[in-house]
Amino acid sequence: MHEIDVVGFLASLSAILVSAKIFGELAERLGQPPVLGELLGGVVLGFGIFSFFHPNDPALALMAEFGVILLLFETGINSDLSELLKVGPASLAVACVGVLAPFALGYGLMCLLGRGGMESVFVGAALTATSVGITARVLADMGKLARPEAQIILGAAVIDDILGIIILSAVQGVAASGSLSWLAVGRTTLLSAAFLAAAFWLGPRISRMMIGIVHRMRVRGILIVSAVVFAFVMALAAHALGTALIVGAFTAGVLLAGTDKREDIDGALKPVADIFVPIFFVMVGAKVQLSAYNPLVPGNLGMIVLALSLVLLALLGKVVAGWAARGKDLNRFGIGVGMIPRGEVGLIFAQVGLSSGVIDAPLYAAVVGMVVLTTFLAPPLLKRAFSGA
Amino acid sequence: MHEIDVVGFLASLSAILVSAKIFGELAERLGQPPVLGELLGGVVLGFGIFSFFHPNDPALALMAEFGVILLLFETGINSDLSELLKVGPASLAVACVGVLAPFALGYGLMCLLGRGGMESVFVGAALTATSVGITARVLADMGKLARPEAQIILGAAVIDDILGIIILSAVQGVAASGSLSWLAVGRTTLLSAAFLAAAFWLGPRISRMMIGIVHRMRVRGILIVSAVVFAFVMALAAHALGTALIVGAFTAGVLLAGTDKREDIDGALKPVADIFVPIFFVMVGAKVQLSAYNPLVPGNLGMIVLALSLVLLALLGKVVAGWAARGKDLNRFGIGVGMIPRGEVGLIFAQVGLSSGVIDAPLYAAVVGMVVLTTFLAPPLLKRAFSGA
Repeated sequence: MHEIDVVGFLASLSAILVSAKIFGELAERLGQPPVLGELLGGVVLGFGIFSFFHPNDPALALMAEFGVILLLFETGINSDLSELLKVGPASLAVACVGVLAPFALGYGLMCLLGRGGMESVFVGAALTATSVGITARVLADMGKLARPEAQIILGAAVIDDILGIIILSAVQGVAASGSLSWLAVGRTTLLSAAFLAAAFWLGPRISRMMIGIVHRMRVRGILIVSAVVFAFVMALAAHALGTALIVGAFTAGVLLAGTDKREDIDGALKPVADIFVPIFFVMVGAKVQLSAYNPLVPGNLGMIVLALSLVLLALLGKVVAGWAARGKDLNRFGIGVGMIPRGEVGLIFAQVGLSSGVIDAPLYAAVVGMVVLTTFLAPPLLKRAFSGA
Repeated sequence: MHEIDVVGFLASLSAILVSAKIFGELAERLGQPPVLGELLGGVVLGFGIFSFFHPNDPALALMAEFGVILLLFETGINSDLSELLKVGPASLAVACVGVLAPFALGYGLMCLLGRGGMESVFVGAALTATSVGITARVLADMGKLARPEAQIILGAAVIDDILGIIILSAVQGVAASGSLSWLAVGRTTLLSAAFLAAAFWLGPRISRMMIGIVHRMRVRGILIVSAVVFAFVMALAAHALGTALIVGAFTAGVLLAGTDKREDIDGALKPVADIFVPIFFVMVGAKVQLSAYNPLVPGNLGMIVLALSLVLLALLGKVVAGWAARGKDLNRFGIGVGMIPRGEVGLIFAQVGLSSGVIDAPLYAAVVGMVVLTTFLAPPLLKRAFSGA
């Protein structure tokens, strides 16, 4: 027998999925997004209840990567470039201010605290994120998706996702090159933009050609397998151009969203994403050392104060963005609040920062704490902002 | 960064899935089952075209294991114990003769050739398999599923699957204990039977309880995740009782087939299986050393003659089984022919034999050749057997 621990692998996957669903259900019952429960489930698993579960198991790490690629692919499929153009300049303005203001606030705070340039960039970048999934879900649950504010938020969140991904790959390039070089930032930004431009120029032809071939094939499962392989190949192409894998996966999704098979792919992708996406969030949670948040441990108090300061800046930076929207009788506070949840994108920043060694464990804990708190605060704030009007 | 080769993993998965679908489509166009194409796709990948693809990569091996567990789970969900009881004694008789005759023939030939007891048991066991998937698919494609012969074949194939899995776990126990002990065979058979008895006694209550809980939960993806976790947990329970993981996965499927969520689970499982099941077949194909079939290489000629002899015994043993069916005006030749394809179950036997070291590479090649040829021959033979009547 090869030394493959199938038993440990299946046991770990079972534990991950069970805790994801139990805590996800609890979160949902408490009116919170399930992703919060999945994170908490991971935190609980990270306590070491099960001897077979290791937060740094390479096979589980691959499954988590598979999950985050599927998540961004799915987000891309549910994005719509034409819808984005419809809601127009309002969402573009909100997205830009919603990226610039939090970045400036976060970067500024870190510089004031005397932190290094790379750390400051990472924290600023993590503050720019907007979780389009969480926002869309909350607004849909409230039955407010048809309101103009909701359309502006969704449009801005989609632009923000693209901007966030460009920032992420820029920041990843910085992490890889080992030092903060504005030249490198510009270069990776350009490469990301070049990848996106090439993808959106060649992509529609390639994706339509692929769907055309798929139409003429009859073997079982050809649609979902082609879609997943397309996401993988685009991810690998993005990686080969020095950009992040998930940029490619997201782009693949947006491209397939423009084909006539969008709904079929989305439907078939759902159960696959249902299984693998929670693995990513649970594994992120499992890496959070809760002891880092113990205020009695010396030094932790500073980190907790930092986390809370980041939360305040995170709220401020996005709420301000709401006022960038033009239009009559808009609930600008509501728009800003809709941009607050950092969700998965913010966690990806934190994760990249930790795994590349740019961010140390306490700062990681502060950023994750900021992401968790903004994600946690958004649904009740959104409810309040939109229940009056 | 942890040393996780995400890029190599995604590239390998892409290569596996693309070759599975291209060769699967070719097979389908040539009127052959796609599984044959997936095997051939694996053989081609095994030539070493891509430097990043390694047939013994542990991460890919885990994905293949995941795939075979999903396959047996899906087969279980599409099995029906009550349907089995309807077609009654005819399929039971066909299944029993269809297991005993090929086993006796294969075991006898190997003993005559002076091979060891364990090798003889493995080869005999590999000959007992029937691929319910291939048979059902071919009959459905021919529009003959309503015929009594088709129902008898399906019933017998389902029983054969269960018998085959008991034989497999018995044989796996033999391989693990290192020597051929009839006591061990009896013990593993009893343990398998005990697991199945316990599963079918407690299982319906547990699966109904699980579905009851799932009904009351609202978090996204709860049904498919619960189903997959149920398959994993049953697989682990089977393993803990000394039986094979796939026995548990199959049992989990049969149990869930008896719940009111059967169709929902089957529908959600399809895209997941579409992605992961081909990985198993491609990886099996990738381990076939085609050079072993070169008749010019000294010694190979003997193996090829052995493979062809096994094919003859495989055909004979199953065709004979057709005459075990009682009932008026039955196409008994057609029933026997319907039992011929060994498909995935036969490959699992070969795989277990090779990985446990009981079977050497040439004998593995002979058994895989037998499986491939019976699977290849079945569709045209079935067409001929049923086109007249």
